[in-house]
Amino acid sequence: MKPASRTTPSRIPQRGHTDTETIYPILDEALFCTMSFVWEGRVRSIPQSIVRMGPAVYFHASVGSHFFRSLARLDEVCITVTLADDIVVAKSAFEHSVNYRSVILWGKPEVIEDHEEKYQAFRALTEKMVPGSWDYLIPMTDKEMAKTLAIKVPLTEASAKVRQGPPSPQESEREVWTGLIPIRSVRGIPVTAPDAGGIPVPDHLR
Amino acid sequence: MKPASRTTPSRIPQRGHTDTETIYPILDEALFCTMSFVWEGRVRSIPQSIVRMGPAVYFHASVGSHFFRSLARLDEVCITVTLADDIVVAKSAFEHSVNYRSVILWGKPEVIEDHEEKYQAFRALTEKMVPGSWDYLIPMTDKEMAKTLAIKVPLTEASAKVRQGPPSPQESEREVWTGLIPIRSVRGIPVTAPDAGGIPVPDHLR
Repeated sequence: MKPASRTTPSRIPQRGHTDTETIYPILDEALFCTMSFVWEGRVRSIPQSIVRMGPAVYFHASVGSHFFRSLARLDEVCITVTLADDIVVAKSAFEHSVNYRSVILWGKPEVIEDHEEKYQAFRALTEKMVPGSWDYLIPMTDKEMAKTLAIKVPLTEASAKVRQGPPSPQESEREVWTGLIPIRSVRGIPVTAPDAGGIPVPDHLR
Repeated sequence: MKPASRTTPSRIPQRGHTDTETIYPILDEALFCTMSFVWEGRVRSIPQSIVRMGPAVYFHASVGSHFFRSLARLDEVCITVTLADDIVVAKSAFEHSVNYRSVILWGKPEVIEDHEEKYQAFRALTEKMVPGSWDYLIPMTDKEMAKTLAIKVPLTEASAKVRQGPPSPQESEREVWTGLIPIRSVRGIPVTAPDAGGIPVPDHLR
């Protein structure tokens, strides 16, 4: 990944990484990102679901989305992914920290015209959200494809920032507990829709 | 909250809210946000921990943070908070959705010079991250206060966007399971730091 001054953390630079071995797994674990861009000279942001295929991240929306159609005319968007792993509890509030893995990337959005790439992007996102579900669902139709705008952002400029580990050692007269409070994003037991009573929960959701 | 054209969703406007009764609980539940801004004509974003006190959100960093010192000179930042509640599973991939609660807000960052406000912002963030811990920790010193830059962003322009509920009904010949897969951010069992062996886990962390 091309490093750049703005992808090099100015503080604690050892937390910065520009290798795909660090960046890709973070993008692949996160279901959501924040997409930011400049619009009429001012900053805007929007939460988005995100999926990576190769060296690009993919997004989709209805062709009726004014925002998404505008996206394709931008020179650049900034995409941020943050995974929080632990609250790092130190002896003093001042020394508290967070264990996290984050990625920031910039790129020019491109509308995907290729039917197969668009189909695969839809499939990849669906399988990321609900693993094993693509072949179970009603197959995607050409009409649905036509109603969807898919956009990719090539990963040309990206960096990860990672903090892991216990709190930094800190001298004190008093004994104070220190350690980590893990934070995890977990999936709960599927809840059947009111109008789907009697239809068994499929194996991939058990 | 002042509504504005950019805080009114262009699609599915019934998902938009500008009342503090909707906005505040989302800001209060989220531990992290993405802060975005325009820098030398280009967009930048950074993940931040966030805490709200009254009609403002608060951030802090080391006075050594080049980024944070620059923040105070900006006319505007955009702050985005996203809480994902459920993956909404429909009969076709096309109809899949996400139940979420998000807030987008804009405001001008202000450096907090008032000692008491700065102290209370630090306390509020610590109590949000680790409820019940402030009085247990080694008290914050004036030296630590001086080494910290605190910034607030008044909530002058903000909106929430919320989707909740089951998938939209969809006709089909085939029986296909539909429903919700809950996503939850949970806190795990505290892990004592290697150099804190023997110090009991305090009651507020049990």
